[in-house]
Amino acid sequence: MELNDLIKQPSGWLKQVGPNSEIVFSSRVRLARNLENVVFPDWADKKQMECALAMLKASVTQLNAIKNGGLFLDIQKMTNMDKQLLVERHLVSKEHIAQADNRAVAVSSDETLSIMLNEEDHLRIQMIEPGFDLDACWEKISRIDSEMEKKLSFAFSPKWGYLTACPTNTGTGMRASVMLHLPALVMTKQINKVIQAIIKLGLTVRGLFGEGTEAAGNFFQVSNQVSLGRSEEEIIDNIKRIIRQILDYEQNARKVLISQNRISLENQVWRAYGILKNARIISSSETIELLSNVCLGIEVGIIKGLTREIINELFILTQPAHLQKIEGKSLSARQRDIKRAQLIRSKIKK
Amino acid sequence: MELNDLIKQPSGWLKQVGPNSEIVFSSRVRLARNLENVVFPDWADKKQMECALAMLKASVTQLNAIKNGGLFLDIQKMTNMDKQLLVERHLVSKEHIAQADNRAVAVSSDETLSIMLNEEDHLRIQMIEPGFDLDACWEKISRIDSEMEKKLSFAFSPKWGYLTACPTNTGTGMRASVMLHLPALVMTKQINKVIQAIIKLGLTVRGLFGEGTEAAGNFFQVSNQVSLGRSEEEIIDNIKRIIRQILDYEQNARKVLISQNRISLENQVWRAYGILKNARIISSSETIELLSNVCLGIEVGIIKGLTREIINELFILTQPAHLQKIEGKSLSARQRDIKRAQLIRSKIKK
Repeated sequence: MELNDLIKQPSGWLKQVGPNSEIVFSSRVRLARNLENVVFPDWADKKQMECALAMLKASVTQLNAIKNGGLFLDIQKMTNMDKQLLVERHLVSKEHIAQADNRAVAVSSDETLSIMLNEEDHLRIQMIEPGFDLDACWEKISRIDSEMEKKLSFAFSPKWGYLTACPTNTGTGMRASVMLHLPALVMTKQINKVIQAIIKLGLTVRGLFGEGTEAAGNFFQVSNQVSLGRSEEEIIDNIKRIIRQILDYEQNARKVLISQNRISLENQVWRAYGILKNARIISSSETIELLSNVCLGIEVGIIKGLTREIINELFILTQPAHLQKIEGKSLSARQRDIKRAQLIRSKIKK
Repeated sequence: MELNDLIKQPSGWLKQVGPNSEIVFSSRVRLARNLENVVFPDWADKKQMECALAMLKASVTQLNAIKNGGLFLDIQKMTNMDKQLLVERHLVSKEHIAQADNRAVAVSSDETLSIMLNEEDHLRIQMIEPGFDLDACWEKISRIDSEMEKKLSFAFSPKWGYLTACPTNTGTGMRASVMLHLPALVMTKQINKVIQAIIKLGLTVRGLFGEGTEAAGNFFQVSNQVSLGRSEEEIIDNIKRIIRQILDYEQNARKVLISQNRISLENQVWRAYGILKNARIISSSETIELLSNVCLGIEVGIIKGLTREIINELFILTQPAHLQKIEGKSLSARQRDIKRAQLIRSKIKK
């Protein structure tokens, strides 16, 4: 696989439909791991970074998922547009591409597995699955973790667990998260109450691109805050229990909208569809808001004959770097807005 | 013809396409006439009003245009909804239906001729033609005027001309107006300059429903301010000359939009179309704004396969009283917004 192959299709975990994908777009588990007796990236000098990268690369590239059709990318050698593409596909953090020296990323062909090398920690291993399926993420990532642990010695304290650059990750080094689409809770103005409850229960709520990003398109990423003092299974069970409650709330809110205010909901959904199908210039933020409404419309049965796959694809392909990669050249903001509208029309027409 | 037949079709002058109808929706000439030695309606007592009405009615109902398939309506006997319907079809003034006693209106079957009895003046005769055709209005209304003058003696002073309740109408008693659709002058922000120029040239600019109404949907009604000291032909020639200039300005502005900013114009036009085609709830004011954009889109060739006839029809049929008459019952504002959206979708689908 080559990097340019990515834009030909949405991420693997968006092509398929998983459990509860009417609300949960994806589940994700990531592990932070560091090499024993090797300085953490943020404290390492150039030479130390080089050495660490070499060790990590030797091991990562031997993983079956990477070896068989995956990608290994040296961030430093990438164009800014390609780096942005990786962010848009949720394969790397913004921080990782900001400091390119001796940083790399490995991605499996279906993009469910991605591994950042020399990010804040030596390894940030991420497994994404479609829908609400943290168990599958955990099962698969555990295998990758074990496979790597055979070749690399990870910094581990019997008292604290896995050691990490930031103490908030110490212990399991694990963060489990789900990407929730909660339009009905937003429309019925219950979302703030729900977010407050989630936070009180020890979880964190973020926007579409993780830490420091705002909620857009009614997407909320919910993850565990604490990774210390509990087993991975306990952490996952806890978040699963809370997510199931949120699903109930959102499902109820959708039922209420349908039964008590169907015409207003139809109005909002069909207007969004009408604009997407006809606009000639459209911004990224308007697109995500309208796609969110159309997505809800499909899920509650208002819009028929338009699939979730197309909407999921549009969420990814309408992003700035994707548009420019598809066009094969750099585009101004206005050119992107025009190209975005074209792409949406062509996909919806089908 | 009966009153309820009106709602089955748009006004006659909207069904046809007239000269310059890409910008001029309609031309209108109205004459104010009063009976000699009979008190003006606003100063008359009940008995005097009754007598005047009887005299006027006898003459008006003998006109061929009224006799042959036209309508004669006693305002007092009408429901509020039917009165409102007449206003929405530009057949009576708001003032005329506000004080119903001993007031009436006669309408020809194609609605090009309408005559208010006992409005501010004893007679307000109106002739509307599609497009830019004040000459046709004047020619036809002159004939009606002559026909009536054979049976009625009008208050006329050799020095002042026709006498009227308000001195602004004295002289010819004529007001000539055109309904202009000027979206490009509005979009290119030239409209205020143009309006100022029109006013300086002695004409008046009003909204869609004449005196005291605001411009909506980029519609502007331009009429003569002075009816005294000039012949009817001179007044009409003057307004025609100025309107021709405004047409040039609007045509140029459309060309500029198309050549310099086609994509933005397409965006605005297609978004309007997309919303009209998909909305489930839509207000009267949003409808008129969106129809205005779609109308422009048709005229400049952006939208094909949708006719001006349908748009013209929707301008009329989406008004509150029309919607309720079509539905055959009184509707709340929200019910109207839903019904309006339904009607628009059904007409555009065709």
